[in-house]
Amino acid sequence: MSAAGATHDEAWFAARAVAGVQRLRAYDPGHDLVALRRRFGAHALVELGSNENPYGPSADARAAILDQLHALHRYPDPRGGDLKRALSARHGVAPERLLLGNGSHELLMLLAQVFAGPGSEVAFSRYGFAVFAIAAQASGAVPRVVEPLPRDAAMPLGHDLEAIARAITPATRLVYLANPNNPTGTWYPGDAFQVFMRRVPEDVLVVVDEAYAELADPAVWSSALPLVACHPNLVVTRTFSKGYGLAGLRVGYLAGAPGLVAVLERVRESFNVNGPALAACEAALGDEAHLRWVAERNAEQRSMLARALRERGLFVFPSQTNFLLVELGPETARIEAALLEQGVVLRPMGGYGLPGCSRITVGTAEENRRLLRTLDDVLGGRR
Amino acid sequence: MSAAGATHDEAWFAARAVAGVQRLRAYDPGHDLVALRRRFGAHALVELGSNENPYGPSADARAAILDQLHALHRYPDPRGGDLKRALSARHGVAPERLLLGNGSHELLMLLAQVFAGPGSEVAFSRYGFAVFAIAAQASGAVPRVVEPLPRDAAMPLGHDLEAIARAITPATRLVYLANPNNPTGTWYPGDAFQVFMRRVPEDVLVVVDEAYAELADPAVWSSALPLVACHPNLVVTRTFSKGYGLAGLRVGYLAGAPGLVAVLERVRESFNVNGPALAACEAALGDEAHLRWVAERNAEQRSMLARALRERGLFVFPSQTNFLLVELGPETARIEAALLEQGVVLRPMGGYGLPGCSRITVGTAEENRRLLRTLDDVLGGRR
Repeated sequence: MSAAGATHDEAWFAARAVAGVQRLRAYDPGHDLVALRRRFGAHALVELGSNENPYGPSADARAAILDQLHALHRYPDPRGGDLKRALSARHGVAPERLLLGNGSHELLMLLAQVFAGPGSEVAFSRYGFAVFAIAAQASGAVPRVVEPLPRDAAMPLGHDLEAIARAITPATRLVYLANPNNPTGTWYPGDAFQVFMRRVPEDVLVVVDEAYAELADPAVWSSALPLVACHPNLVVTRTFSKGYGLAGLRVGYLAGAPGLVAVLERVRESFNVNGPALAACEAALGDEAHLRWVAERNAEQRSMLARALRERGLFVFPSQTNFLLVELGPETARIEAALLEQGVVLRPMGGYGLPGCSRITVGTAEENRRLLRTLDDVLGGRR
Repeated sequence: MSAAGATHDEAWFAARAVAGVQRLRAYDPGHDLVALRRRFGAHALVELGSNENPYGPSADARAAILDQLHALHRYPDPRGGDLKRALSARHGVAPERLLLGNGSHELLMLLAQVFAGPGSEVAFSRYGFAVFAIAAQASGAVPRVVEPLPRDAAMPLGHDLEAIARAITPATRLVYLANPNNPTGTWYPGDAFQVFMRRVPEDVLVVVDEAYAELADPAVWSSALPLVACHPNLVVTRTFSKGYGLAGLRVGYLAGAPGLVAVLERVRESFNVNGPALAACEAALGDEAHLRWVAERNAEQRSMLARALRERGLFVFPSQTNFLLVELGPETARIEAALLEQGVVLRPMGGYGLPGCSRITVGTAEENRRLLRTLDDVLGGRR
């Protein structure tokens, strides 16, 4: 027992894991919010670290959960048929092109697990979603990190689609993109993406994570979803965690070729999406007015907050999401810690290789005021 | 588009998948219950195909979900700290030995994904839980199917621990056991398991799925959970889907060596368990009286139903679960279809290689009466 504990530590088990896992580090979900809520009280805490939707979901989603409370002992629908039909109607994508996931996180992992693997390469942009690197490594593939656009470009640190296309080799099986991208907030235009897709060989999967799609302005951003019908190697992932305000329920989905979906179905866990979650997402999808209201509030507050931060002399990256990447400079860690002491939680970017930046979720008007007031106190102390 | 559809079918994508997935078949979750509920009405249907708990969860679990409805926009606790502490207190297993999963299905898959893989072997008994074979194959490992005890043994078709120990080769990385076993309902005694563990080399993981633990009689069945502290290569999985009546929420857990848990944490999706589900399971765990009540009702009805089926001349396998494996003979498919026409759903066993048997969930007294009445009609028609 104690002897066993000494010889069978993490290193012992890691040495017996598949190659990809041996050097893998777990995803860092950020601060321990449960502990912080207990310390500050949930209402006193300003949670701007996880890009959650501060307005919450449609009331219809909550009502749908109440309707499910009598059936908690039943397995969820393994086919997710009702939610898929609702998504199909919404997006004009046939149900057999859709796969539901326990968050898009699960789907992003599954894609690499099934289509990458040892001996293959997976390409993605530096400062892309952290899960891309984990998914690639866990599968045993070699991650191929592509440098982003320069800091002084119109889309600073955004995806360099040209460079990503050039990084594709005969070993490449999968390319991950995020549009808009987390943690930079940047995006690329639809025509550039169409040029990119024409350059990608048809046996390389292109996975576009559109987690923030519902919060982007259709005047400047366009989805890859309508292109799925034209490119069998294109996969688009979406989530109910952001625009729909249902991060607690863990539901994402992907759209792709029916044949690709059928192969992923072989490995998908049959009851991967929770029963109340299926019902809540279907209900949320039906409340377009709430989604529109959320997107408008978010866009308003995003402009307001970006302007206010720029007025304070800070560099704010362009964003079509519900967060802003902000350069706080060499004092970033001290500023974040001082804000945290006042109950304002940001997301440190050291793990993303951007230690001089902080990622700030766009909160409600009141939350943003509190952020700015506290930031002024902290920055004033520095000046 | 149509051209793309023709050339990029399932076979095209399967050929580009990792080796283990190329010949994999998806788990068969049984009948389309959503469609059957719509056809018969949820209340008229007698659902005895999925080994669900017909009594439902503790009312405390439902109340805990109500308490979470204000926080659906927040990500769940990625550490699952509160539920782990509650499980730790219940089982006397340290929290760092516990890992939560989106059902034990996710954990069973993760274990093979991380510790098996191409070039390795995974051993399990024929007529064991279907997920074992899928997990092994998806990882790229070679499944090593061990013949069970003979049909005329005291535990017919139960695990032959001797034979499983003999099937271990230098390539074996993982052994899956289920105790009690699904779909046979059989179990093995604790002392035989201890002998088995002494024969297994310490770098072979032994995974014991105890999904039905809470429904087994402690007078005849014993858990491997207390042995986890003695054997670093022992992993026990449990679920809230059966005894706790929360199949709709997808929560399972495993207990193992802290080093093993740390390695699995590298690949686990950080928010794999849904927020309301975490709260509901913690609440359910606190209501021991409900669990005891469920286990007593189930044991009573299990005896009654087994006796009634045997009185009808049918062979019923011994069971410490909430289901009975019953031999219906060459007419099985016809009998199942006739029962289904009357709204009584059983689980066909063809996919398990037992086409002459049917797996019948032990229902409530009323459900079991309806099953027997309908069965008498159908069998009467045969005689």
